[in-house]
Amino acid sequence: MTEDLSGISPQRARELFREGLVRPTAGISRGFAQANLMIVPKELAFDVLLFAQRNPKPCPILGVLDAGETSGPLLAGGDIRTDVPQYVVYENGVPVARPTDITEYWRDDLVTFIIGCSFTFENALLEADLPVAHISQGVNVPMYQTNVRCDPAGRVSGPLVVSMRPMPANQVADAVRITSRYPAVHGAPVHIGNPEELGIKDINRPDFGDAVEIPDGHLPVFWACGVTPQAAIMESKPALAIGHAPGHMLITDAKDSQYLVP
Amino acid sequence: MTEDLSGISPQRARELFREGLVRPTAGISRGFAQANLMIVPKELAFDVLLFAQRNPKPCPILGVLDAGETSGPLLAGGDIRTDVPQYVVYENGVPVARPTDITEYWRDDLVTFIIGCSFTFENALLEADLPVAHISQGVNVPMYQTNVRCDPAGRVSGPLVVSMRPMPANQVADAVRITSRYPAVHGAPVHIGNPEELGIKDINRPDFGDAVEIPDGHLPVFWACGVTPQAAIMESKPALAIGHAPGHMLITDAKDSQYLVP
Repeated sequence: MTEDLSGISPQRARELFREGLVRPTAGISRGFAQANLMIVPKELAFDVLLFAQRNPKPCPILGVLDAGETSGPLLAGGDIRTDVPQYVVYENGVPVARPTDITEYWRDDLVTFIIGCSFTFENALLEADLPVAHISQGVNVPMYQTNVRCDPAGRVSGPLVVSMRPMPANQVADAVRITSRYPAVHGAPVHIGNPEELGIKDINRPDFGDAVEIPDGHLPVFWACGVTPQAAIMESKPALAIGHAPGHMLITDAKDSQYLVP
Repeated sequence: MTEDLSGISPQRARELFREGLVRPTAGISRGFAQANLMIVPKELAFDVLLFAQRNPKPCPILGVLDAGETSGPLLAGGDIRTDVPQYVVYENGVPVARPTDITEYWRDDLVTFIIGCSFTFENALLEADLPVAHISQGVNVPMYQTNVRCDPAGRVSGPLVVSMRPMPANQVADAVRITSRYPAVHGAPVHIGNPEELGIKDINRPDFGDAVEIPDGHLPVFWACGVTPQAAIMESKPALAIGHAPGHMLITDAKDSQYLVP
């Protein structure tokens, strides 16, 4: 049983991670936006930023730290090298390490992309009494690599990765309506039902995260997922890139409500 | 009296401009998104894209053409060098020419940013029977350089430029509600009433465009404006940059409705 950290401030959460706490961040500092991370050398930064611009649903950028910068307004007083519970280091597109601190990998030419995360709209779904299966089942959200290609940008290309939440047929429309109000954090679903059309062979075997039970009468609803940039890095094979470990997000100082559009 | 071109296709409109027609684009190809233009050398492109990412209200990017590319999905079969009715060429931040064709300035390292334009939400305002003063008065929208600074990015910095539309007090809320549904084309107003707080000394003397009459009981409502990137170019003084002439926009193949969020 993990400790309830839902009420602590983002600053305190980052401090705990800096001090060595390692755990998935779901439910920590409720009400504050959590974020995906992608750190690349400056020479690749334009391509990554353009890839994000061209694929805003999977890659909604919340903030960018300039080359060498380790802090910024989304993590006031924090340090991007230590304040995420766990990272994944990629060399030539291959994960080579999962450190809890990337200080030894840091370089002055590294540009940090802070990318919106579905945790923000999950709070809104729960608030509206919609089910969020992986939360009630206590596992990580199931994620699938699809046969849909993202729009490429320069040297960066890759498949769309989606996350899945089963919804009762009579609440699918509500799930669409609510999440479409959060375009900065993946927005409306990209696909509803028919996983095979996305090239998903077995819904019970996600490529990342954990499988969830899909109750009878529920449809699988798919949202663009912030793991997409990491899939692109694995395909594009830059010499160095650093992301977060799945489910181990950056907890930012931005409130979820800041990303709500009417 | 200019000819009514509201019903022609975007392709036909671009063809007319390519063949030499020079006129403001308001009202042409109604229902299709018009766009601001900013063309810069590749070596400045990351800074411009990051500036746009950090200032999404004035600089909502609809598309980017890679270095040297002259066409793309937003202008199918078109040519960015000829298909805008009039351009402004900046050298070291100073406007040096207003050509109707930029073929002679073209270089293989030029990156084109296609940026959302308020014409999209103006159609939605008109549809909802809200007044759009500059349209009913037959002039260009009044635009003002403010004392608000945009978030800088690398070598690119500058003031926020706003456009103004007077609204009756009992319809200001509707204007907010409607335009906030178009985050990709400037979105909700940035300021309502009190122009002096924005550093606007004389509302009847806009910095760009034309003054409009503000009827009694109307409030000046200010939206972030797509001229902001050009103001940043004037301040940041790159050796070369090319924008559109105010009011002389790129007419894209994207429908206005594509940018509507619920």
